[in-house]
Formats: sequence, structure tokens, C-alpha cells
Amino acid sequence: MQGDGLLVDTVRDEIARACDRYGGSLLHASGTDDEPVDLVFALGGSELGEEGYALTNHGGVTTVLAGRPAGLLYGLFQVVRLGEEAFAPGRPAEVHRPATRRRMLDHWDNVDPHPVMGQVERGYAGGSLFWAHGALRDDLSRVRAYGRLLAACGVNAVAVNNVNVHAAEAHLLTDRLGEVARIADELRPYGVRVHLSVSFAAPVVLGGLPTADPLDEDVRVWWAAATRQVYQTIPDFGGYVVKADSEGQPGPFGYGRSHADGANLIADALAPYGGVVHWRAFVYNHQQDWRDRSTDRARAAYDHFSPLDSRFRDNAILQVKHGPIDFQPREPVSPLIAAMPATRLAVEFQATQEYTGQQRHVCYLAPMWSEVLAFRPWGSDGPAVAAVAGGGDLVAVSNAGDDQFWTGHPLAQANLYAFGRLAWAPQSDPLAVLDEWIELTFVPSGTADPERLRRTLHAMMDESWRTYERYTAPLGVGFMVRPGHHYGPDVDGYEYTPWGTYHFADRDGVGVDRTRATGTGFTGQYPQPWSQVYESLEQCPDELLLFFHHVPYGHLLHDGSTVIQHIYDTHFEGAEQAAQLRQTWEQAAGLVPCDLFARVRDRLDEQARSAEEWRDQINAYFFRKSGVSDAKGRRIY
Amino acid sequence: MQGDGLLVDTVRDEIARACDRYGGSLLHASGTDDEPVDLVFALGGSELGEEGYALTNHGGVTTVLAGRPAGLLYGLFQVVRLGEEAFAPGRPAEVHRPATRRRMLDHWDNVDPHPVMGQVERGYAGGSLFWAHGALRDDLSRVRAYGRLLAACGVNAVAVNNVNVHAAEAHLLTDRLGEVARIADELRPYGVRVHLSVSFAAPVVLGGLPTADPLDEDVRVWWAAATRQVYQTIPDFGGYVVKADSEGQPGPFGYGRSHADGANLIADALAPYGGVVHWRAFVYNHQQDWRDRSTDRARAAYDHFSPLDSRFRDNAILQVKHGPIDFQPREPVSPLIAAMPATRLAVEFQATQEYTGQQRHVCYLAPMWSEVLAFRPWGSDGPAVAAVAGGGDLVAVSNAGDDQFWTGHPLAQANLYAFGRLAWAPQSDPLAVLDEWIELTFVPSGTADPERLRRTLHAMMDESWRTYERYTAPLGVGFMVRPGHHYGPDVDGYEYTPWGTYHFADRDGVGVDRTRATGTGFTGQYPQPWSQVYESLEQCPDELLLFFHHVPYGHLLHDGSTVIQHIYDTHFEGAEQAAQLRQTWEQAAGLVPCDLFARVRDRLDEQARSAEEWRDQINAYFFRKSGVSDAKGRRIY
Repeated sequence: MQGDGLLVDTVRDEIARACDRYGGSLLHASGTDDEPVDLVFALGGSELGEEGYALTNHGGVTTVLAGRPAGLLYGLFQVVRLGEEAFAPGRPAEVHRPATRRRMLDHWDNVDPHPVMGQVERGYAGGSLFWAHGALRDDLSRVRAYGRLLAACGVNAVAVNNVNVHAAEAHLLTDRLGEVARIADELRPYGVRVHLSVSFAAPVVLGGLPTADPLDEDVRVWWAAATRQVYQTIPDFGGYVVKADSEGQPGPFGYGRSHADGANLIADALAPYGGVVHWRAFVYNHQQDWRDRSTDRARAAYDHFSPLDSRFRDNAILQVKHGPIDFQPREPVSPLIAAMPATRLAVEFQATQEYTGQQRHVCYLAPMWSEVLAFRPWGSDGPAVAAVAGGGDLVAVSNAGDDQFWTGHPLAQANLYAFGRLAWAPQSDPLAVLDEWIELTFVPSGTADPERLRRTLHAMMDESWRTYERYTAPLGVGFMVRPGHHYGPDVDGYEYTPWGTYHFADRDGVGVDRTRATGTGFTGQYPQPWSQVYESLEQCPDELLLFFHHVPYGHLLHDGSTVIQHIYDTHFEGAEQAAQLRQTWEQAAGLVPCDLFARVRDRLDEQARSAEEWRDQINAYFFRKSGVSDAKGRRIY
Repeated sequence: MQGDGLLVDTVRDEIARACDRYGGSLLHASGTDDEPVDLVFALGGSELGEEGYALTNHGGVTTVLAGRPAGLLYGLFQVVRLGEEAFAPGRPAEVHRPATRRRMLDHWDNVDPHPVMGQVERGYAGGSLFWAHGALRDDLSRVRAYGRLLAACGVNAVAVNNVNVHAAEAHLLTDRLGEVARIADELRPYGVRVHLSVSFAAPVVLGGLPTADPLDEDVRVWWAAATRQVYQTIPDFGGYVVKADSEGQPGPFGYGRSHADGANLIADALAPYGGVVHWRAFVYNHQQDWRDRSTDRARAAYDHFSPLDSRFRDNAILQVKHGPIDFQPREPVSPLIAAMPATRLAVEFQATQEYTGQQRHVCYLAPMWSEVLAFRPWGSDGPAVAAVAGGGDLVAVSNAGDDQFWTGHPLAQANLYAFGRLAWAPQSDPLAVLDEWIELTFVPSGTADPERLRRTLHAMMDESWRTYERYTAPLGVGFMVRPGHHYGPDVDGYEYTPWGTYHFADRDGVGVDRTRATGTGFTGQYPQPWSQVYESLEQCPDELLLFFHHVPYGHLLHDGSTVIQHIYDTHFEGAEQAAQLRQTWEQAAGLVPCDLFARVRDRLDEQARSAEEWRDQINAYFFRKSGVSDAKGRRIY
């Protein structure tokens, strides 16, 4: 064990703890020691970068070599993942470097509980890890443990408050900065930097200025001063997150300025300290008229931001949701990701299962994220999304809270873990990542039959996202959820609202015509070949058919089924699969802690009930509209 | 002015106030005075009952003669209503006695604001008149003024808290009784008695008993003792209101007892003091399965209560909503009203406009109430609902709050006034009652052109309920509202929920089959002739067609229009009428206080917007489902 500093101390403490538990002892070596060792941690090899490490085995000695202390920490967790295998003689050397520089979790946590959204907006895992009763928690030991968990996943940045910045939360930037500093103190030993969501109106709200105009000199001075204070308090502070001109949040539009003006204002304040601003591209008209079929919410991010490419500072990172709408179970990749070659991008995922079962349903999301990261916007010869985002960051909305299992549904922990792992190595196989999570989560505590447990969890989780997709909104049409809380079905719930999320089902057909030929022209935002593929009714992938096309119920899918029969078939099948999960889980009885077993069992009951409700409502809705009977004669209400 | 006592003092104070304002003087006569007078208030004539009065004019002297002081008070307000006319020489004598003994307003006011429902459940007029910040208001002068307003309307009883009795409110019965007593003190001078909504679980919640079983002796003793305490504190206390086994409230079903057992338990506690219990008949399964078409919420009250007729104590009043569902703009009269000949009944209206525009829309409800009161359940030879209820009470859910205009929408005051007047004299012409309200509200303050104002308000209000009906859910089908708050359209909002409120629209037709022949059999709950009229597709009144029958869109109404064309026509017409109100209201500019003018104008803007939304959503929904174009080629989205 070589080296000094906070992160080296963390690694040393981890080793010492492991030695206490499993045997062995820790040597504080200066490099010349002759005592025989199994595992060496050494600094050196600057080509490994800030966080990379090499794992080698020579003569029975396993060595973690890193350029910087953070690499030692990540190397340590790789050794833990490998277990015995890390010590196999002759194991070939591995070099690991993260594909993305910043692997970040955004917490939509409120300091003051919001009257509707509660302590954590779209949180399904109890309260906030950071905040309770309007202030920072007194006991931050859980935050420390969270930092350790994040490091083990590979996450290195956390935004500690909701992107919707309400009154109390605005003050975290100034007079309540001390609370943020205390969180930073807990996370720092694990290489996790703290970021803060701030209000674009902060100069007005906090500074008493008459304006927040990004071109106003007093405003620039205010941001510079506020940010200087932040870095005096938290020298390794990560930066700001801003949701501007979106769903009621203030922004540069209010002053007739562009989002580049807005983002650069804040980026300039951060630049002297190496900080970054994550500027969210989630800007759209949420007071749309449902009667107006020419406006298309899917177009909004591209329309707003693509003209601004190259106008953002280097430390302004445009944070783009992976799909053009809002974290539906199935969306195409956002065309904005391919439209900003001269801008640093972050791709935003949603680990918290707002639209994917709210941690009451099993829904392992890594296969979806993996598809997104592997998507090649310019076709098979071009780079994948992972490479485009590799210049910037990967971000996920956190699914963790103060729940005893961290994520409400214990199996939702896998999404947290997989996000970190995919952000580090996007080409990872999501099922291998799931294996890692199963191993790390259940095997160290000595489960009786790890193989059976692994089989059981794979049987439940591998296909869980596609199962969820089957029994909810069909063929990529999205948003058939109950308004407000977004749980459970309501086919017309958003159909006549201002939110821009419609399906246009009538007695003849369903889907949104987003073609250039006859629709909103959204397909034209993609480069070739996707621009043509999505435009074409023949070539468009079935799973996105209703996202791009309005088709009659009798339209034939590539497998020869009609749209209406596909709706019936997938809904019967999906609900059946959801119901089956309960039997499968019985295989895990006795293999996991009994409180965890019970929690999962209860949630599976709810999932089965809810999936049945989805099946019956979706089928009834489309049967009543289309008048087409199920070819298999199953019960539709 | 003759007589003594609190109410006589009130009359005397009112006269003195009037003399101060309009001239004249008040004589305290003992009956032998010879001084010439214009108006005499005298006690005598015991045949006039507790509240009746006679108004006579002999030799230029107008006399209000009453058996009891309350009659003097009501007589005074009649003189005010008549104005100059009361003093017309030779005017024939009038005798007035209230048709219903108790004319009551239920306030759904919470002491602690409810996290979802707020301070006043279904309140659209600001906060509560009684409660603020979790306790009785310090300043009760507004309560005093409210009592005066109620007496002027003819209301003589008020329940001061929500029928959904939450934790804080439960304590009003015992340790927080003093707050109720203070309200009673303010209302007593106006002849208004105070009632209290109580929890059926009070013996458990407040008394610490292990059960609230109505046949348990300890429970009986507890209610007796609690009630004794209430009457020691408020000797003229009116009684209790109970919502039991309804929407989550506790009740006798929890102990395997009947609602007669439950109501009688509480009635027995009240009997020694002359108090009554209003026991609500609003009992139904709110966790119904939408797939189950055999269960019919409309049947619930009759099914629960009709077998219990004659089993209730004399001081137990079964409080029945006027329709079988829940205060929709159009429902048939509840068959339960005709099914309880041996039970005292109260008919419950809803002055607060939960389903009729939430005091953002003009909707004068007296014509609807008047239709209900005039309905003859046994046909033209039998008594009207007013006579049936005459044995008991009329109750309305209050629409008043701490809003500066009392009711949010200033024109909604007319509903409060009309309820009191119809409860006193159910055969009154609702348009004449509206005239009274206009006169009393605007003329004393000296409007410039009372005739124009009267014309304007009649033009806006006379038909306003039918206008509202036109642009909302069609032909009596009801409940096409946004779930939860119940404002604005959402055709399928309740279609797949547990609430029992469905329309069953499909591509071929719409409506609920409640016939005996092929449906739920609800029509069989009515006596003849209605049992047959509603059963018959030919005889069923058009405005209730979809309440009783599921029909194809091409079904012909009595006017020769198809159902689908009727939907289009009424929605275009209703929205046009709503839009027109704004122009009509301009006629009142300068004739009413300018803040009131502005408030109404703002609400009319919202009404026009909302009516357009209703029109377009309802029309779009049925066009998309039926595929039938509007015969007049108007725009449907």
C-alpha cells in the first residue's frame, strides 16, 4: 500500500476493514519491503489518467497501479468484484479507464418537502438521503455510506438538490452553502464531487438585483462573487445544474436572451475554478394546445438548441435526455445528441423509475440504456452515442433514498449499479453487469445457493424492461399514464392536456405522424440513415412505429401481426409474465434476507395487479375504439 | 316592538339599525301605546308555530305577528324583501310557515387544512368562515355576519365541520367543544343552531374504548356521556352529522351491524336533549372493479337503506343526496326518497359547485333543485319530493367561505340565497327567488339602473344551469370530469377507476344500461310510473337517456336528432352561450361595485375558456370514437 492523501486513506481503510473480516494484514510499504504480499496498491503510470488503473499479476502478486489516488480506489473495487479471480496466477493484465469523465447522479431532492412532489420529486425510495424536515440531516453517516456505494459503482459526481429549485433550495447557493459543504465532506473520501442545482433567477431571488439578464454586468458580477464564495467553502466543488425556461423555471428567454447566453453566464463564473455548468436541454412548451397538431414536443430540444451549437463555453455541458420526450419506456434516441458536434454534451438517463414502474415493478433498465449508448446516429459507420457523450458526461436521475434497501424495490439497486458501470464502460454487457450486482449484493453475505439465486434473478430481471414495455403503452406511443403521478394506465389521461403528449387514437387508428411527408417533420431532425428509416413506414422499427407514424389498426407489423392484435398479444403476454414473477421469486426463499424477500414479494403482488390493470385498460380502450375482437378470443372488457 | 329574549333583541337591533339608516324611530311598546306607528312586531298567534309569521296591514299599519321570536325575525326579513310594498294600504294578509322544519347548511370545513382537500373540502370561496390555521378563528365577527345572512335566507341550522372527520376535527366533540360553543354563541342571535360532524369511531379515537360497536354497552354509555357534556356546554345544540362506512369513514359495518343500529346508537344519545342525528345515505363501494358491469353505484343507497325503513328512531334523519350518484349536473331523483315512508328524511343538495363549475362558472342551481323538489315519485297523483322531505329536512353543502364576496363567484351567492328560500317554500318560482336576490343584493346600495341590472342578471343566470349542462357531459351520463379535483373535462377520467362512474362509450354507442330487462335493474328501484318510464327507451326523458340506457350514436331523440348530433349541437351551443355571457355582463358595467364587476368578468373569461375546452374535448372524443361527422360541418379536432 503506497501513497498519501484522502483517497489513499480511504483505500487503506477499506483494506484494513477487509483484513479484519477475512484475515490478512496491511503493510505500509515504501517500495523496498521484502515481506511477501498478495496485493499491492501503487501510484505511478501517469498515462492512466485521473481515475484509470491497471491490474496485473506477476509471480502471484496482484498489483493495482494507478496514476492518481482515485484510480487506486476504483482498482480496489475491481479487485472486490473479481474476488478470488483477481489473484489467479498468470491472469492477463487489465487496464481500465472510464469512458466518461463525469458519471453523475442528479438527486431531485427538495430541502423543504414540496406540497405535491414531497421530499424527493419522483422519488420512490423513502425520504432524501441528505435532507429532512427542511434542513440537512444531523446524522450524515448514511451519506458517507452512500459515497462508498457510489464509488463502488463508479459514480464520481452528485447533484444534491432538485433541478426544480424552490424557495428554500435556492439558498443553498449562498447563506445555506454550509449544508452543501457538509455533504461534500462526507462524499469527498470516495472521490465524489458535489454539484448544486441553482435557480437562474438567483441574482434576483438571493441577490436582490432587479434582473437576472445574462448580459447584465451586475448579474455577471453577482454570479462571479457567489461562485467565488462557493469555491472558498468547497474547493473541489463540481459545478451547477440549471433547468431554465422549462416547466415554469426562470431562464434567459425572460430577458430575450438565448440559452447560450444563459449557460455561458454561469459557465464564466465557474471557469476560474474548473467548475462546470450542466445546462438542461429539456426546454419545451408545456402549455401547448392539444388541438394544434403542428406543434410537436419531440422537436423542441433540437429546435431550441441545435442553432446554438459552438456558442457554448467549454465548461458548459448541455444535458440532453436520452429520448426526445421524457423517459418513456421506449423512445428513439434524441436527435439533439447528433446535432451538437461543437458542444459538450451529457446524456441524461432516469434511474428513478418515474415511467417504468416507480420501483413497485421490476424493471432492470440497463438493457435500455445499453441500446441508447450503442445507437449510432450516423449509421453503422459512425460513432455510437457512448462516444458522442464520451466527450462529456453521463448523468442519471438518482433512484436512491433513505429506504432501508436504498431504492424501495431491492432489485432496483441494480439500476443504480448498472448506471455507474455503463457510464464507466458503456460497451459492457448489461446482463454481465447484472451478474456483478448479484454477486456483490448477495454472495458476500453467504447465500446458501448462489447459483440458484443467480438463475432466479436473471429469470426475473433480464427481460423485465421488455416485459414492462409489453403491458404498458404499445409500440413506442408512450404516455398513457395517469396524469400527475404517472403510475398506472390512463390512455386518454394526457390526450387533451397542454403537455404535448398525445396518441391521437380514433376508431380507425393510432399513433403520431412525425414524418416530413405528412406529419410534424420530426424525422428530419435525424441524420441519415435514421432520417429515412424513421420516415419510412416500411423501415421504421416496430417498437417505434406509433412514435413516428399514425397507422390503421389493421397495419401489418414486420412479424405479420396487425397493430391491434399486437396490442392484445403483448398485453396478455406481458401481464402473464408479470404474474409469473411471483412464482419465480419463490425460488429465492431462504437465499436472501427475509425482510428483503418479503419486500420484493409484496412489490411483485402489486406489479401483478398493476400489470393486469394495464392489460385490461389498454385492451378495453382499443377494443372499444377499434371494434376488432381478439383473434384468440381472450377476455377483453 | 313587543316581546323579550335574544331573538327579539336581534329584531330590535335590526330595526334600530334600519331607522338609523333610513329614518324613523323605534318604540318599545307594551301594547297599549297610542302613538301612531307604521310597523308593529307582535308575539301571539301560537298556530303560527316556532318560525311562522303573519303579515297584515290594517289602517296603514303593517303588523308582523308571530307565535315565537324566530317568527318575528323571519317576518322582519320578509318586510325587507317586500320593501315599500309591505306598507301598501289594503295589502292582503300573508301567512308564512316554513315547509321544512330544518333548513340546514353542511360546511365541509376542516380545522386542520387537509393536504389534498385544503381548508374547505370542495370549497371554492377561499378559506373557512370558522377555522384557520388549525383552530377557531380569533375574530368571529364574520361568523356573526354569516348568521345574519343565513337568517335572511331562511336557514336555521349549520354543521360546522366536514363530514369527513379527520384527526383534529374529531376532538370538536370533546376537548375542543369550546370552539363549537363559541360559534354557537355567534349564530344563536339569528336563530341558527349548530350541528357537528362526528366520527363513528369517536369512542375509540377519543374515548380509548376498544370498540365502537353500536350494540356495545360501553359504547352507548360513552356516547351518552359525551352528548350530555355537549348539551351542558351548548344547550340549544342541534345534533350530529355522520358519514359512516363511506369513502373510508368508519361505520357500523365494521362491527357487523346495520346502519339502523349505528344511527340509533347516536340518536339515543341525543334524544334526551331534543337533538337529531343526520345519518348520510351516501354509502357505496368506492373500490369497485370497473370490469364488473353487474355492480351499479346508483343502486347502492337504496340497496343499503330501503330494507331498514321503520327501523330508525324518530330523531334519526336519513340524509339522502338528491340523485343516486353524486351531485352531477343532471341526475334522476334518488329512488331512496320514495322508499322510506316510515323514516324521517333529509334531502341533500350541493350549493358548493363541485360538479357545476366550481364557482368559476355561472350556474344558478335553483331551477335544478326546484325540479327535484317538484318531482312526484309516485306520479302526478302522489306527493312531490318537497312534501316527502317536508317531514324531515333540507340540507345543502355550503358554498360560502371567507372570500370577500362570500362565495368566490359573486353570482354564486344566489345559490346560497335560493337554497334557503326553497327550503322554506319549495314551490317558489326559482326565477322569482332570483329576483329577490338581485333586489336585496344590489338595489339597497343604490344601483343606477336596477331594471337593466335585473334584465342583465336574468339573461345570464336564468338558463345558466342548462347552459352548463349543454357543454359538459351529455344526456345525463355524468362524470366526464378530471379525477380528483372534478374541474374540466376528462371523458375517460373515471372510466377505468374503482369509483363506479362509467359511461361505457365505444365506437358504436354510449350510456349505462340500468334497465331491468338487460341492465343493472336500477329502474326497478322506482315506484310506478317512473319504473316503467325509465325502463322504456321510448318514454325515458332525453335528458336522462344515457343515465338509463346504452344506445347507438344514431339513436333518435324525441326531437328527431341523433344522439351524436345532439352531442355536437349542444356543445357548440353551450360554449357559444358561455362565451356570450361576457358581452352580456358588459351591460352591468357601472351598475355594480367595480371590484365585483371585475371579479365576475374574470370568472366569465375562465368560463368561456373552460366551456370551449369542454366543447372541443367532448366533441373530439365522440367524433374519434363514432367516426360520425358533424352534420353542420363545424370544426371538431
